[in-house]
Amino acid sequence: MSTIVQKYGGSSVSTIEKIKKVADCVIEKRKQNHKVVVVVSAMGDTTDDLISMARHISDHPDKRELDALLSTGEMVSSSLLAMAIIEKGFQAVSYNAFQIKLKTDGTYGKSLIKEIDTGLIEKSLNEGKIVVVAGFQGISYEGDLTTLGRGGSDTTAVALAVKLDGICEIYTDVDGIYSVDPRLYSDAKKLDKISYEEMLELSSLGAQVMHSRSVELGQKYSIPIYVGLSCSDIKGTYIMEVNDMESKPITGIAVSDDDIAITIKDVKYDINLLSLIFETIAERKINVDMISQTSPINGFVNISFTIPKNDKDECIDVLKGFGYNSLAVDENITKFSVVGIGMKTTSGVAARLFKIFSNNKIEVKMITTSEIRITCAINNDEKLKAVQLIAKEFNL
Amino acid sequence: MSTIVQKYGGSSVSTIEKIKKVADCVIEKRKQNHKVVVVVSAMGDTTDDLISMARHISDHPDKRELDALLSTGEMVSSSLLAMAIIEKGFQAVSYNAFQIKLKTDGTYGKSLIKEIDTGLIEKSLNEGKIVVVAGFQGISYEGDLTTLGRGGSDTTAVALAVKLDGICEIYTDVDGIYSVDPRLYSDAKKLDKISYEEMLELSSLGAQVMHSRSVELGQKYSIPIYVGLSCSDIKGTYIMEVNDMESKPITGIAVSDDDIAITIKDVKYDINLLSLIFETIAERKINVDMISQTSPINGFVNISFTIPKNDKDECIDVLKGFGYNSLAVDENITKFSVVGIGMKTTSGVAARLFKIFSNNKIEVKMITTSEIRITCAINNDEKLKAVQLIAKEFNL
Repeated sequence: MSTIVQKYGGSSVSTIEKIKKVADCVIEKRKQNHKVVVVVSAMGDTTDDLISMARHISDHPDKRELDALLSTGEMVSSSLLAMAIIEKGFQAVSYNAFQIKLKTDGTYGKSLIKEIDTGLIEKSLNEGKIVVVAGFQGISYEGDLTTLGRGGSDTTAVALAVKLDGICEIYTDVDGIYSVDPRLYSDAKKLDKISYEEMLELSSLGAQVMHSRSVELGQKYSIPIYVGLSCSDIKGTYIMEVNDMESKPITGIAVSDDDIAITIKDVKYDINLLSLIFETIAERKINVDMISQTSPINGFVNISFTIPKNDKDECIDVLKGFGYNSLAVDENITKFSVVGIGMKTTSGVAARLFKIFSNNKIEVKMITTSEIRITCAINNDEKLKAVQLIAKEFNL
Repeated sequence: MSTIVQKYGGSSVSTIEKIKKVADCVIEKRKQNHKVVVVVSAMGDTTDDLISMARHISDHPDKRELDALLSTGEMVSSSLLAMAIIEKGFQAVSYNAFQIKLKTDGTYGKSLIKEIDTGLIEKSLNEGKIVVVAGFQGISYEGDLTTLGRGGSDTTAVALAVKLDGICEIYTDVDGIYSVDPRLYSDAKKLDKISYEEMLELSSLGAQVMHSRSVELGQKYSIPIYVGLSCSDIKGTYIMEVNDMESKPITGIAVSDDDIAITIKDVKYDINLLSLIFETIAERKINVDMISQTSPINGFVNISFTIPKNDKDECIDVLKGFGYNSLAVDENITKFSVVGIGMKTTSGVAARLFKIFSNNKIEVKMITTSEIRITCAINNDEKLKAVQLIAKEFNL
């Protein structure tokens, strides 16, 4: 009798009918004599609707109150799911963050989980109950509600699987993890498994499937995470330790249109000043990703870097504060990344990649790399061409 | 610097615009240097909407989960109000039942408050913050969310006023308490004050203004309760100790269409059995109000009593459990009550009342009385006629 922690995303519980269907799937596992814990997100667009209400009150809603507000979405879906399970004749109980003492570091909007008291959950499981947990939420040591950030319910599920020494299954509206987004490349192959490292790179680069912190947590505690379609027999993907030395050099492609590139032209080259600028940007919680710099000419350089689209105005403010008024903003970039642990052992991946780009006249504006990743900023309108060429070349 | 506990009902916070307006009114009091605690109900029809979702899952939703679900409504409105106050430049903080340890007896759907730890509230008040409390909710000693029943936010407010030794102000969408519902009798007069006893009788008899448990609590601790229109200078009504010997015999009329009458025909007259039946009904938390019994004929009697419409199925279940299958259910009754502490000193009120009914051919089906109240069950379609005749006769 193993413990299974399942997580159902917002699209899987967006209507009462879907909640009833999830209840059936959960009950199916319970009938197989497993101990079942279910983590749910808020129904459909609930979180967005709540944010929209808050924005009608304030452009910058108080963060403590915003978290208190957003936490209600998962309380609604968790109690409705428990109700639906009970209606079908099985025992169930819903718990929120207060009840299972899911303690966080207290950062509003993006809390880290510090501890969970699973005593109550284990008691209920031992009584034969299906336990439904409100995802995405925690409480600070001061007793405030704090949320774990977008997609935080994944992290709730993995954390519970760790604490309960259970299996973790993430159910969503896609049937697994693909090497390339099938909307961009219709021949994309679904992966049977993917390593934590690769998934982390892909998540942080725009693959929407998993909350990257949940993958980190799975990796840290070696908990395999299954990702699959809600209430379906279609085989999904395991995120797990992969020690396959014969793996392909590239496992997946991720693209993101969420960033813009800012270029400061003809800056006096002064490493102390440059680091101060990027520190100031970081203090404003603006996430700078790619940075490139031209060679100094007469002591002057051009600096380009990418930031999330949303942070454009704030970042320009910061730069103007440093006296930089000659800024070029490129809003039409796509971050194009190839990821694969095979790169560790296969050389020449970058060369193959750039050769394809050059042969097909795709301009590469910036480049960053890690041990298992190469990311290029390219023109937005060349995205589809790039995806299809690379996916074909590397047989994804 | 006195402490003021204000309560705003669902219609006062039904939109973001109204929440902003309430924020202004609350801030107005804070500016006068009062310590301000605000209790809010759920926005507009939220509670009904949540109930409707639950009913789409089950005809009899699990009570624990229903309470967990319904509690979210007040969490939403309290965090939005706190946000709106902060946006206007004042300090505010919202608290739910977990945070202020508002402990109840644990009865789902109609919990009694057992204790409140006001430490956190007092700390925040002393820091100059406006404290916003989610009404209607509490937690059981087992840590489950339990609700206080319809209108329970009134009780939250009075309980907080008691604990904080403050003034209690209930703001709603009516501008005070009237002798008769103005929708039924357009000449109805607004009362400057009404005694706890009278208000209790009127509340429990269908006057929608106040949750009767909140009035009991006010009476028990001698806390005057002001009832008035939200954000308005119109003078409302005080519910308080009234020692006016010259008061009119009748202060108010209440009518309720919320009950049905059940008649058990030809029951063997056995006082032990009858008391066991009513005990069993009470254990199911079904509120039996009027009871009448015919004289025994050959040891058999007819028993009629009224219960809330909602409890019909459960009550019939109980009675069938005792083997009573021959039940008559009258769904078209109105409970018509006249209330006044003046009745204690004025005799002949009942006689005047029944004379009017008899002269106007209004059939009285059941009667119950207390020291300050006479209640008759009449046909629903004679309600308006009865209200107007009696209001005129007693100059209400």
